[in-house]
Amino acid sequence: MSMEQPSHGFQVRFPAGMAPAACVDIGGTKVALTLADASGLRGKWSEPTAKVGPSDALAQQIIRMIEQACAQCGLAKEALGAVGVVSCGPFVMQGGLVELAAPNICGGLAGKARGLPNDWTTALLEAPLRQAFANVRVENDGVGALEAERRWGALQGLDHCAYVTWSTGIGVGVCVDGRALRGKNGNAGHWGHSFVSDNTDALCGCGSIGDVEALIAGNAIGRRFAGLGFGDAAQLFSAARQGRSDALEIVDGLCYVMGRLLFNLMTTLDVQRISMGGSVFWHQQDLLLPRLRAQIGDKLPAMTSGVDIVPAGLGESVGDYAALALVL
Amino acid sequence: MSMEQPSHGFQVRFPAGMAPAACVDIGGTKVALTLADASGLRGKWSEPTAKVGPSDALAQQIIRMIEQACAQCGLAKEALGAVGVVSCGPFVMQGGLVELAAPNICGGLAGKARGLPNDWTTALLEAPLRQAFANVRVENDGVGALEAERRWGALQGLDHCAYVTWSTGIGVGVCVDGRALRGKNGNAGHWGHSFVSDNTDALCGCGSIGDVEALIAGNAIGRRFAGLGFGDAAQLFSAARQGRSDALEIVDGLCYVMGRLLFNLMTTLDVQRISMGGSVFWHQQDLLLPRLRAQIGDKLPAMTSGVDIVPAGLGESVGDYAALALVL
Repeated sequence: MSMEQPSHGFQVRFPAGMAPAACVDIGGTKVALTLADASGLRGKWSEPTAKVGPSDALAQQIIRMIEQACAQCGLAKEALGAVGVVSCGPFVMQGGLVELAAPNICGGLAGKARGLPNDWTTALLEAPLRQAFANVRVENDGVGALEAERRWGALQGLDHCAYVTWSTGIGVGVCVDGRALRGKNGNAGHWGHSFVSDNTDALCGCGSIGDVEALIAGNAIGRRFAGLGFGDAAQLFSAARQGRSDALEIVDGLCYVMGRLLFNLMTTLDVQRISMGGSVFWHQQDLLLPRLRAQIGDKLPAMTSGVDIVPAGLGESVGDYAALALVL
Repeated sequence: MSMEQPSHGFQVRFPAGMAPAACVDIGGTKVALTLADASGLRGKWSEPTAKVGPSDALAQQIIRMIEQACAQCGLAKEALGAVGVVSCGPFVMQGGLVELAAPNICGGLAGKARGLPNDWTTALLEAPLRQAFANVRVENDGVGALEAERRWGALQGLDHCAYVTWSTGIGVGVCVDGRALRGKNGNAGHWGHSFVSDNTDALCGCGSIGDVEALIAGNAIGRRFAGLGFGDAAQLFSAARQGRSDALEIVDGLCYVMGRLLFNLMTTLDVQRISMGGSVFWHQQDLLLPRLRAQIGDKLPAMTSGVDIVPAGLGESVGDYAALALVL
């Protein structure tokens, strides 16, 4: 585990006197960790997400990573003021504490076998972390990213807003009436698993057929369009940039689906602004943003008029600050 | 304007010492008014919704109805402790006060002409009411119905829940983390205008093509299926009850759409329970409820497991209590 130097081009202020905090971002592919204090980000580390061993393997990996990072920075583990964790979901609660029922991590979810090297039905998370650290907060990654965008990014000063990530998966965090929505198990925001289309040619990791994530997530693009010569999202967008009509037609189809998700957000939650990030969106925003805005068009102006879709203020660094936003 | 005797078969408690309240329910077809105090409902009145004259005609109708009702009950208008109003939407705000931009009331909404006898782009509401009465609260009818179900109905004691009305239109109110969602203009809950299907053979009053309300609202059924011999919802359901396969297939299609809306609610807002009412649902619930539950099935159990869809505890009287729930 080696340290990367964090970099960012935007203005993030940390409170004077802030105790050091460990900020963890759990994805299906990697676990990222940053340490931060009043002087800013102290360092950034990442490892492939632990998926073998007992069902607390991921939690133990996180505890070890934090301890090693503290050691590298000359910090006593006891000096940590808080540990913030954002994670892919869904969450289930066990005794009031979060466990992960994430189809990209847990190999034992009934009927959802994806070749994962474990048979976990859940991955333990909050309980082991609370045994190791004094002050732990766990939220779904959509909520964390929303809070980061509200604090430092494109959603500052807004009481009704959403952050949408279009990446390997689709994640959403929503704020209504000044408060981030959490729900009974902290799972509010899983708009990636909503249905906006009748298309049935796409199977989601969650087992559903034709939900948004199955149709347009980064990992769905290669799966759906390899037969048309686009083995992954990069190939598709490269062909679209060369003006190939078959690729552009697919891009329009992706934006039709995401555009409906965005319209549904505006219509059902009456937000003021939506900010977007994630690897698929971020690198293709010049292609995608006009098409997404066109999907909203002049539909239902009482709900959509003046509601803009904008790139994330924190750019590609939203994830780095998502967990930090929870512990400030 | 004559008084009907209100009736209800469930237990509704009113606070001792409660000052008289006027409770108004504005729909596209009629305006309903109840007066209530500590002894219960004092009376119920209704008139066709005013749609001719200046754009404050509806507000003036409501003021007159309340004054006449007070007179019939021997109440001074000044004795009213509160006026609660629930209305179809969407709302727009003018100087912080609600005006209606409802396509079933306002004939002047650009490009949305439906033969209404006015050219209003909005109907004034909150401003004239506040000139006439001391304590006025206006919410969309989904929020009011939700609050009534939380207070007296099938959603008591729940912090994460939704009420869905399947009636002439489709309305939804949602509570997450213990609070009813309102949004920037009080329009949160317009799930009837969300998209869950690619079907384009149905035009909504809002101007959208193929949203939920266009596909399955009570007033959409006759429009869509008259050519198949079903001139209205009653004819369709009557044929389905006789076992006609063409009618049952249409009913299945309606439940496919509403089932997706319900699944999307569970997935995006992580609720504990959904209660349903409205004239279409209420009279056909034995046909509809099993089909709606089957649409959820075992999809995404981390989000849907244990989340039931139940008939409204207040039955057909949800609307009568919606405005009252706002002013207690």
